[in-house]
Amino acid sequence: MRVELINTGSELMLGFTINTHLSYIARQLAGIGLRLDRQVTVADDREEMRVAIEEALARSDVLMITGGLGPTSDDFTRDVVAELLGRKLVRDEVVAAHIAARIRKRGIRLPESIYVQALVPVGAQVLPNRNGTAPGLALDHEGKLVLLLPGPPRELKPMFDEYVLPVLEKQFGAEARFDCRTFKVVGLAESVVEEKVAPSLADLKDIELGYSAKMGEVEVRVISHLKSTADEAEKRIRATLGDSIYGIGDDRLEEVVVKLLTAARKTIAVAESCTGGTIANRITNVSGASEVFINGCVTYSNESKVRLLGVRDETLKAHGAVSEEVAREMAEGIRTSSGTDFAVSATGIAGPTGGTPDKPVGLVYIGLATPKRTDVRRHILTFDRETFKFFVSQYALDAVRRELLKQ
Amino acid sequence: MRVELINTGSELMLGFTINTHLSYIARQLAGIGLRLDRQVTVADDREEMRVAIEEALARSDVLMITGGLGPTSDDFTRDVVAELLGRKLVRDEVVAAHIAARIRKRGIRLPESIYVQALVPVGAQVLPNRNGTAPGLALDHEGKLVLLLPGPPRELKPMFDEYVLPVLEKQFGAEARFDCRTFKVVGLAESVVEEKVAPSLADLKDIELGYSAKMGEVEVRVISHLKSTADEAEKRIRATLGDSIYGIGDDRLEEVVVKLLTAARKTIAVAESCTGGTIANRITNVSGASEVFINGCVTYSNESKVRLLGVRDETLKAHGAVSEEVAREMAEGIRTSSGTDFAVSATGIAGPTGGTPDKPVGLVYIGLATPKRTDVRRHILTFDRETFKFFVSQYALDAVRRELLKQ
Repeated sequence: MRVELINTGSELMLGFTINTHLSYIARQLAGIGLRLDRQVTVADDREEMRVAIEEALARSDVLMITGGLGPTSDDFTRDVVAELLGRKLVRDEVVAAHIAARIRKRGIRLPESIYVQALVPVGAQVLPNRNGTAPGLALDHEGKLVLLLPGPPRELKPMFDEYVLPVLEKQFGAEARFDCRTFKVVGLAESVVEEKVAPSLADLKDIELGYSAKMGEVEVRVISHLKSTADEAEKRIRATLGDSIYGIGDDRLEEVVVKLLTAARKTIAVAESCTGGTIANRITNVSGASEVFINGCVTYSNESKVRLLGVRDETLKAHGAVSEEVAREMAEGIRTSSGTDFAVSATGIAGPTGGTPDKPVGLVYIGLATPKRTDVRRHILTFDRETFKFFVSQYALDAVRRELLKQ
Repeated sequence: MRVELINTGSELMLGFTINTHLSYIARQLAGIGLRLDRQVTVADDREEMRVAIEEALARSDVLMITGGLGPTSDDFTRDVVAELLGRKLVRDEVVAAHIAARIRKRGIRLPESIYVQALVPVGAQVLPNRNGTAPGLALDHEGKLVLLLPGPPRELKPMFDEYVLPVLEKQFGAEARFDCRTFKVVGLAESVVEEKVAPSLADLKDIELGYSAKMGEVEVRVISHLKSTADEAEKRIRATLGDSIYGIGDDRLEEVVVKLLTAARKTIAVAESCTGGTIANRITNVSGASEVFINGCVTYSNESKVRLLGVRDETLKAHGAVSEEVAREMAEGIRTSSGTDFAVSATGIAGPTGGTPDKPVGLVYIGLATPKRTDVRRHILTFDRETFKFFVSQYALDAVRRELLKQ
């Protein structure tokens, strides 16, 4: 049972549009236990498309093709597939009526060429398009299922959910089912995660393990055809990694932190230098953050560290802005003035310039002030500027999370 | 001259990661007049990878493969390619030393398996990895160029720019050239941009026009095989869109703003409510921002708007936190206390909750305080929370940009 996907579009091959179809379709398929075996992108080029489709058709049981169903001169998919499968294109009057109705509703005038989208290969099943004029098409070809789907995500997604998934589940859902679980790990390097996890699962059969290093976190992925095996693997992974696992699936660290703060009825403030607002920005990306987040200050200049956070001039003079002492006073200062339970601070050298032999680019101090005490951690994170900022925000958020887990 | 790209990674084929490599690489190639002919994604599956690489190798002059160079058990690319090309893998001591140095610098302990990344196919050229441990590899195979590149974007991008592009340009740059120019437009809708641009270029031959709506901006793309045609098209597009064009190619609005501030020797402060740090974060993403950015405050609570920005209690009571008056006092307050030339502010309702009939989700006031006056603009931006925040930051940055253009 082999599934392939072809995405067509010159905008993809010129890099002007990021391909989100692969990710969307793969996740939807995983939900019914199916996997994509190959994905191919080609430009709106008739010959390139023909070759790619012919090759994929020879290999697969299910072939999905997105894009190229529109009315303009660079839309070739319908033609190429009809030709390859030896089917005539005939006008489908139901589709034509749908197109006419949509145009009427919008009150616009469109050229007659729009009705090329009503052409359907003989024997194809029409998949209605709720958000556009080009219908999807499902074709049975020598026991293989060929699906032609529209390119725009807002047209493809509802069509995929409403028509494609049920068909696939009915026809192929019983085969090749699998259970896929993802654990999100923070504070450990990818190789360390594997070193811990792999031995603990070594004796499990029918299991596929994967590791992905993301910005400031690692994803551990377990795939098994048996739920019981996936359960056992999850139990062992959780036992091995413990609190380093902050979430599963699509969880984001900032969401977990806001959820923990909300559950504990605690509030937080943020004092940022080198992160320049990244920590506050991530926290406030979470809906409901206003219940727990009081305020943040982005203090780039020394003077603003004194004025807004109450850092002492003497501390800045004695230790410099990038120091344990200043990180401590930043966190304590904003915690006191904001009247919050917690405060985090970050001061460091994002680079690419500003480093010295003593204080190199990448050096950062992260402070966490709680009602009981203030901790400051030192890290050296040698990344480009934006990655550095994100990593620091990750460490800061994780410090808050670990503190909340203790409570 | 045929160029293909293979992206490997189970996280891509399971939909956990969106593939941004295709877009990045395609754009960089376009910059030197090269186009990608096919892109393929496969999982971390040794046999699936072998078949895809073998097929692509047979078809292409340049084959780029991303991912699968890491230290974990699901990293197969190095092995598969060495086997296909019939090359032995030998330990490269320079690479091993680079890995050791990176580990030492970060002061962390990593398992010995990390050194599998020092294995290099005989005859391969090593492409240094500035942001990670796995080097890139360039192989000449029967006149074809095979490039193995790391999967994490922060490692791939600098390597691609510094090592891959120059090699490609030298070896293949003379063939199949085209001139591709992109103009970044802010403050106009995509359909409005097309309505303005298309008629002005209607009589030009050998020209391919494209429009892409991105978050808070529109890209206009012109492709021509003739420099003179591209020049003429550029002249007309600039005449038509004027100041709405903020940059070209990969320019980012925050970079343009920091550049304009630096050139004018002006400083800025930011007072954010609904954007939660997005504006400060974007400004501080720009290297050199510390020359112009003094400080920012993220004031979610009303009390913090009073305490940190000097907004008056009466104003908050009379008009509410989301109001023209509060946006004005936020901008003026932080401008005065920070002693900057400019200050921007944003107060609004990011949603999904918190709206009322009078003040719906998406309502936002953006203030700009200058030495001469304060302007406040009102918008209604109905997007999801993060898109809303980005759009507001886009409008705020554009307000600063347009003010600086006047000076």
